[in-house]
Amino acid sequence: MQDADIAGFYADLSQLDADAHLLLDYRIECTGDPRAAAAHLASEQSTAQWRRVGVDEDYRPRFAAKVVDLEVETTLSGTSCPLDPAVDGPVSVCRVRIAHPHANFGPRIPNLLSAVLGEGAYFAPGIPVVKLLDIEFPDAYLAHFDGPGYGLAGLRDLWQIHGRPFFFGVIKPNIGLAPAPFAELGLAAWRGGLDIAKDDEMLADPDWSPLAERSKLLGAARRQAEQETGVPKVYLANITDEVDRLIDLHDTAVGNGANAVMVNALPVGFSAVRMLRKHAKVPLVAHFPVIAAMSRLPNFGVHTRVLTKLQRLAGFDVVIMPGFGPRMMTAEPEVRECIAACTEPMGPILPALPVPGGSDSAATLTVVHAKVGSADFGFVPGRGVFSHPHGPTGGAASLRQAWDAIAAGVPVAEHARRHAELAAALEAFS
Amino acid sequence: MQDADIAGFYADLSQLDADAHLLLDYRIECTGDPRAAAAHLASEQSTAQWRRVGVDEDYRPRFAAKVVDLEVETTLSGTSCPLDPAVDGPVSVCRVRIAHPHANFGPRIPNLLSAVLGEGAYFAPGIPVVKLLDIEFPDAYLAHFDGPGYGLAGLRDLWQIHGRPFFFGVIKPNIGLAPAPFAELGLAAWRGGLDIAKDDEMLADPDWSPLAERSKLLGAARRQAEQETGVPKVYLANITDEVDRLIDLHDTAVGNGANAVMVNALPVGFSAVRMLRKHAKVPLVAHFPVIAAMSRLPNFGVHTRVLTKLQRLAGFDVVIMPGFGPRMMTAEPEVRECIAACTEPMGPILPALPVPGGSDSAATLTVVHAKVGSADFGFVPGRGVFSHPHGPTGGAASLRQAWDAIAAGVPVAEHARRHAELAAALEAFS
Repeated sequence: MQDADIAGFYADLSQLDADAHLLLDYRIECTGDPRAAAAHLASEQSTAQWRRVGVDEDYRPRFAAKVVDLEVETTLSGTSCPLDPAVDGPVSVCRVRIAHPHANFGPRIPNLLSAVLGEGAYFAPGIPVVKLLDIEFPDAYLAHFDGPGYGLAGLRDLWQIHGRPFFFGVIKPNIGLAPAPFAELGLAAWRGGLDIAKDDEMLADPDWSPLAERSKLLGAARRQAEQETGVPKVYLANITDEVDRLIDLHDTAVGNGANAVMVNALPVGFSAVRMLRKHAKVPLVAHFPVIAAMSRLPNFGVHTRVLTKLQRLAGFDVVIMPGFGPRMMTAEPEVRECIAACTEPMGPILPALPVPGGSDSAATLTVVHAKVGSADFGFVPGRGVFSHPHGPTGGAASLRQAWDAIAAGVPVAEHARRHAELAAALEAFS
Repeated sequence: MQDADIAGFYADLSQLDADAHLLLDYRIECTGDPRAAAAHLASEQSTAQWRRVGVDEDYRPRFAAKVVDLEVETTLSGTSCPLDPAVDGPVSVCRVRIAHPHANFGPRIPNLLSAVLGEGAYFAPGIPVVKLLDIEFPDAYLAHFDGPGYGLAGLRDLWQIHGRPFFFGVIKPNIGLAPAPFAELGLAAWRGGLDIAKDDEMLADPDWSPLAERSKLLGAARRQAEQETGVPKVYLANITDEVDRLIDLHDTAVGNGANAVMVNALPVGFSAVRMLRKHAKVPLVAHFPVIAAMSRLPNFGVHTRVLTKLQRLAGFDVVIMPGFGPRMMTAEPEVRECIAACTEPMGPILPALPVPGGSDSAATLTVVHAKVGSADFGFVPGRGVFSHPHGPTGGAASLRQAWDAIAAGVPVAEHARRHAELAAALEAFS
């Protein structure tokens, strides 16, 4: 790009039609002139070549993504992550805000991803290290998406869970257990007060636990638990599978009594989830495999906040995400931002239920509740319920007892003196 | 995990059923004891909890992924990439080979991804930095996949391209041009000797260039070019879109005369491509947006070799990938490995055509051909054809002239003395 061409990729945000643009925030490490690098970032993600040979025309005014803000934060002697091939010499660390005209691709998730995380982001000359930090969508764009079918408030009404967190439990052993004993574990946990017994994200439809058979037994166990306890219970079936099986597996599981389905969002693809959303008869729950592969590093890839927004946009009612505590290797502000990405206003799109997870139990509920700052979250132990010393009924009871203490303003450890299941949980999992 | 439990996640490879296991190679940076960390890597991706409370059972022999090789390469004073939260203290850099029983999830791409790039890989205790370097699939697993419908040899027969590279060109301006002038550019390039005129990966089905209209004009132009030149020509239509539109867009484009279709593999999802493969009537071409977000860094994420294998497995006949040269920020051995991942033997799966791309033109053909080491590749200039000083006909001609020189063992610069288009390309793009 010639110096004279760079200006065509810059604009004053106030001069642009806000409804017509997505706002993209990137952190970049660039060699050379930051102003030229940022122009390349805009150019390569839109009309990198804006005229034909021998024709006097310019597609940039209408079609170019434009830099609307550029801030050089600091200069480093080299890139913050080792690269191969290595990039020698100083790099400027910059924040770049780009306004991208969404008519370039329309309200389509794969085309959106291709524009904002494609060759433009990762192969712009002079930008070896880049992270997409956020996307702001105008309501005019969001209006094309269904978003969650139930949303957080809808789930509370549907499942009659009010004024407290949603208590999920991942049935364990996660892999290897046949459907009949698996259903027994679910039933035991529901009896103890669990709301939602779920399949592990790695348990889908294998030969040794076919979803048809498993969902039949779990569906029956779920109904039995509802009769015994008099409150709604949820069997969350993992239907993660090849895209052309999703609808069938949804129908099978739901027909058998599963009343929510889980999809591993990135492995299946956000777009396939959007397809499923149009068909789904029950709430959709996202799990997070693969996401860390592009989001773990603070300076490279894409921020989980963006991927959380996309999951909500695709139609998930519930987003399970890496939560608090060292086990999940995620900084606390990042977890909070993902929770906010589920619940903050997003035009016509309903809020989703955030489920920050990771090695939880009755022993961690106080801390997680405090960090979330409200009861609008799901709590999803695995071992904390299913490896409880008293078994799953005791494990589930320990969660409810911990919440009773929190709700009453009583320290959990004090409440445990009068509740054996809670005491056992604190001893086993603290 | 207790010390005594670790042994259950180790095995002697020679004692395992080779047909029943995938072999996964990871590079990890781990804190603490590498033997324990590798066991966690295996455990978390399979049966992390292998017994019920109070039941004497062990699911590990059948269901656990097992470490079959562990090599500590070196020790670093900290992780090679900055992390947040930071990991303090020394880390061991290790190679870990894991045998994973594929019956845990079956021949399903989303479930495979969930196992090998899920919580097991990225949230195994003590392993903050991990990269999946390779997967070896037994033929028994591969046999469940269709793979490419044509394959490299099939494409040569179909398009009558023998003994030379396939010449692709990305019609430019990539974004903004209306269908009629866009088709004129394609026709001009075909006339000059281009084999395959393609849509940019960011041009799909926008309002200002609907695929139905564009493919009609390009299909007609393609037939005209075939009549004029007497040889097969290809219009490669980008049908990247929401998953539930892929089949319709394929049918529309192919019905209008597109004779190959492109899908941005990761944005749409490998599994949706596998679905499309069952329906497709023309060769399928992959483009690479988003892949760099999880593969760029040498020590984190997943190696492009793995993602290339998965694209081939999903059914792509052609894989466009970041190629040689500094523009594409990819180490030369990595490009070679991705080319090999397309063409090397893979049980019953046909070879795919590798297309290493990036700012190519007649000026780079000699080098790319030498680096690939054969003529079994696609060459995909954009500007090198469509910004050629003589226009697209001259740009395409310059590629064929460059190849004529290479095939005759004549230096391209020498051949250019007698070929104006080649001379102009060398001057413009060198």
